[in-house]
Amino acid sequence: MKPNVAAAKEALSHLDIETSDRAIRAKSRDFFWYSPVLKTRLDHVEADFVVSPRSEAEVIEILRTCYAHDVPVTTRGAGTGNYGQAMPLAGGCVMHMRHMAAVKEIHPGRVIVEPGCLLKDLDAACQEHSGQELRMFSSTWATATIGGFVAGGSGGIGSITWGALRDLGNIIRLRVVTMEEEPRVLEFRGEELHRVSHAYGTNGIITELEMPLAPAYDWTDIFVAFDDFDAALEFANGLGNQDGILKKLCSVYEAPIAHSYFQRVQPHVAEDTTLVGLMIAPHSMEGFLTFLGRHPAGQLIYRSDDNDWDRTPGPVFEYGWNHTTLRALRVDPSITYLQVRYAYPDHIALVQKMRADFSPEVMQHLEVMRESGRTIFAGLSMVRFTTEERLDEIVRLHEEAGAIIFNPHRYTLEEGGRQSADQRQLDFKREADPKGLLNPGKMITWDNPDHDYSSMYAYPGLQAAE
Amino acid sequence: MKPNVAAAKEALSHLDIETSDRAIRAKSRDFFWYSPVLKTRLDHVEADFVVSPRSEAEVIEILRTCYAHDVPVTTRGAGTGNYGQAMPLAGGCVMHMRHMAAVKEIHPGRVIVEPGCLLKDLDAACQEHSGQELRMFSSTWATATIGGFVAGGSGGIGSITWGALRDLGNIIRLRVVTMEEEPRVLEFRGEELHRVSHAYGTNGIITELEMPLAPAYDWTDIFVAFDDFDAALEFANGLGNQDGILKKLCSVYEAPIAHSYFQRVQPHVAEDTTLVGLMIAPHSMEGFLTFLGRHPAGQLIYRSDDNDWDRTPGPVFEYGWNHTTLRALRVDPSITYLQVRYAYPDHIALVQKMRADFSPEVMQHLEVMRESGRTIFAGLSMVRFTTEERLDEIVRLHEEAGAIIFNPHRYTLEEGGRQSADQRQLDFKREADPKGLLNPGKMITWDNPDHDYSSMYAYPGLQAAE
Ligand SMILES: Cc1cc2nc3c(=O)[nH]c(=O)nc-3n(C[C@H](O)[C@H](O)[C@H](O)COP(=O)(O)OP(=O)(O)OC[C@H]3O[C@@H](n4cnc5c(N)ncnc54)[C@H](O)[C@@H]3O)c2cc1C
Ligand SMILES: Cc1cc2nc3c(=O)[nH]c(=O)nc-3n(C[C@H](O)[C@H](O)[C@H](O)COP(=O)(O)OP(=O)(O)OC[C@H]3O[C@@H](n4cnc5c(N)ncnc54)[C@H](O)[C@@H]3O)c2cc1C
Repeated sequence: MKPNVAAAKEALSHLDIETSDRAIRAKSRDFFWYSPVLKTRLDHVEADFVVSPRSEAEVIEILRTCYAHDVPVTTRGAGTGNYGQAMPLAGGCVMHMRHMAAVKEIHPGRVIVEPGCLLKDLDAACQEHSGQELRMFSSTWATATIGGFVAGGSGGIGSITWGALRDLGNIIRLRVVTMEEEPRVLEFRGEELHRVSHAYGTNGIITELEMPLAPAYDWTDIFVAFDDFDAALEFANGLGNQDGILKKLCSVYEAPIAHSYFQRVQPHVAEDTTLVGLMIAPHSMEGFLTFLGRHPAGQLIYRSDDNDWDRTPGPVFEYGWNHTTLRALRVDPSITYLQVRYAYPDHIALVQKMRADFSPEVMQHLEVMRESGRTIFAGLSMVRFTTEERLDEIVRLHEEAGAIIFNPHRYTLEEGGRQSADQRQLDFKREADPKGLLNPGKMITWDNPDHDYSSMYAYPGLQAAE
Repeated sequence: MKPNVAAAKEALSHLDIETSDRAIRAKSRDFFWYSPVLKTRLDHVEADFVVSPRSEAEVIEILRTCYAHDVPVTTRGAGTGNYGQAMPLAGGCVMHMRHMAAVKEIHPGRVIVEPGCLLKDLDAACQEHSGQELRMFSSTWATATIGGFVAGGSGGIGSITWGALRDLGNIIRLRVVTMEEEPRVLEFRGEELHRVSHAYGTNGIITELEMPLAPAYDWTDIFVAFDDFDAALEFANGLGNQDGILKKLCSVYEAPIAHSYFQRVQPHVAEDTTLVGLMIAPHSMEGFLTFLGRHPAGQLIYRSDDNDWDRTPGPVFEYGWNHTTLRALRVDPSITYLQVRYAYPDHIALVQKMRADFSPEVMQHLEVMRESGRTIFAGLSMVRFTTEERLDEIVRLHEEAGAIIFNPHRYTLEEGGRQSADQRQLDFKREADPKGLLNPGKMITWDNPDHDYSSMYAYPGLQAAE
């Protein structure tokens, strides 16, 4: 099953195809370099060509053609994934969804959209149409696509109210094309959504999404400063439990994150400030200020609707979720991070324990979110990186203490998740991608069901570095 | 301090004043008769006259005049309260807010409205203006006023998402007139809201409200039938914890409530059916049906958007909250009820224990709601009434088991609440109603701070029955 790249390129030459080395290199990369572990392993990875379909019919043609010639296809939204999700490990074709960006229908509470639409553009269209917006978005809102978010993301700004992206109700319907001799077009709802959501495009290509909407508000961006980490933690958790205060974001940054890495915030905080970043609906500001008044340890230092800062800090959400690490990396390239889930009801105690055990090597960065109806913390802990061995050890010690780790230093679905097969995804891959050509190397249980997770998976098909 | 009713009436005669016996009797009564205990005590209560102000200026004039002549003033929204809240225990003036019903301003996420506006009319105006509606309403939506809801109610349809009416953020601002020689007009926000919210108009008259709004959807009404009570309970609790499924109502009715008392539902259920009534946002129906599919014990027997029922059951919310008891009362006048709060995390076990202890004398009727970020049950248990002594005993046994009772067979704030002074309400009454003329007899701690709650409070100023 040797790919015949030349034949596939030739057959697709009437489409929008890119063959220049520069374009191919650029579109073969995502934010994998975020991880020092992935950086050393994937830096050389490159596709053979990039093709950008204009319609579902062209997607089908591309998949049919690549199937016929045994050419791997790795789909690309905007390439902002930071697990190397969109990297074509075995070369072949990168299918770039940028032309399929139409917002097709907007209704009360839902939108029908093509996968290549930027989150930002989708929100603008829904706002313009009827004062609506997405329930949640990744902090890469300005650059990422809705298809990439559903296929590669997990939640973000809005998860404090709505939970994670894969929770029931947060995706309504997905339209999916398979990679077979004759590709099929399928519509998934309900339990079937999990076959392809967060499957990295390994078992089908999303060509249309139906997503729920929430009302769009002119959210107030806020920073609250604390001298004491535990007080900030209690404040954030308590706010998460205020059902009547409508919020979209609540991030906690242990000192000295804000002072060291948030350049425009730095003049307004001290080195030992624990900062909380918030987005509150304007009509919930009274309720929020009342809540804040019950927490005298917290000092409101910034609100976007009323402040005297010389330079605006920009959107507060671009300090949160994975953007925190990005800001730190710009100042100190030795910083890396972990993705942690602190589950109810031990979430507060567990964060405190991890902080006691690992400070200052690990700095706590927490996002308040909902899980099964309860307020919990998603941790995007920042780590002062030394060696891979030490990073693995920190992961292990977190897991032993009861924290759940989604390892962002791995490029496979299983290692970035719960280290086991997602049976629904695997079963569907058997059916929809019999040759295993979609985003190869990302699903261990497809390649090697016996992998034992004691060490990092190394995809045998990975391009050799030159 | 003997009231000079004649002088007050005379001074107010240029206003919309009603003096016919029939009108006065009708407007001196609310739904107190719901309780067999209150019925025997308050049936004879009657005001001396009814006046309906057209503006805040007229409210001020009425309060100033009645203050001068020592005439008690009991404010009336629509008189749907079922604790005798709006009954003029000491006679005097009933101030009826029906003319002050203007919707003044509607903004994204909030509305400014006069107190006499019906909940139904307010929702219609917000829907028409910008596709918005109240976050929550009492099941008397069609007949009750927004002022009466805030002054006398506690929550209802919508509390499954937003918590109780008095939770932070669920009221934004109240404008209040005091009863002094020269009445003052005050604006309350934040912590000050609690002075007058749910104070039965005992310490100030609300003349304007600012309330948060949520998006209006064409909610799908649903009934799901279960053979097994515990399965229904788990289903309802689990649904409450589904952050991504947008819901407005989830009521659980133990068998045989649906079969015995819900006439239009009766042909579709069996005597041993435990019924769950729901309101789900249309764009959450996919998520809901997926959730339902995980609970094979539940059978969807009605959905408002697709059914073959000969006769529509009407709005499902009019089976829930206090309407359940109303429907039962129509069939069996010996039915009465309790208001119970089952707190997290023991709410499920506690309901099961109360059911084991009291079935069939007490029938479980539960409403899923949020409290401090957690899903809990509000119980509006139906009781087959025998004697006041037995009713008191049932209350006591619930309290001993750890359930919180808001006794609906009492006409005072304290006995309907936590049996203790609400210091903020009491302090504000001292300031705003120095003569104690507003809705007299409803605040024990004003009348008699030493009352010990071992027996039902009997207001000494209560009109004598003839
Ligand atoms: C600074 C920073 C912050 C981030 N913050 C967040 C965050 O808050 N929350 C979060 O969840 N993620 C976050 N991410 C990860 C990522 O940005 C988001 O998940 C983003 O939504 C991905 O969109 P994309 O268009 O860039 O997808 P890509 O990176 O292009 O693709 C992601 C995955 O989806 C697949 N894919 C793309 N389109 C399709 C399609 N049409 N059909 C099938 N498969 C497809 C790709 O093959 C790939 O495996 C962050 C990343 C960075 C670098
Ligand atoms: C069948 C039935 C179902 C019900 N369901 C619910 C429910 O789901 N949730 C709930 O919370 N309640 C419920 N109730 C109680 C009641 O209907 C509601 O609280 C309703 O919103 C009260 O509004 P109203 O206009 O009838 O007020 P009224 O009964 O007229 O007044 C209520 C109280 O508020 C005071 N008041 C009224 N207007 C003002 C004002 N402008 N300023 C100061 N004080 C004022 C009155 O003096 C009185 O003490 C129910 C009652 C019945 C009979």
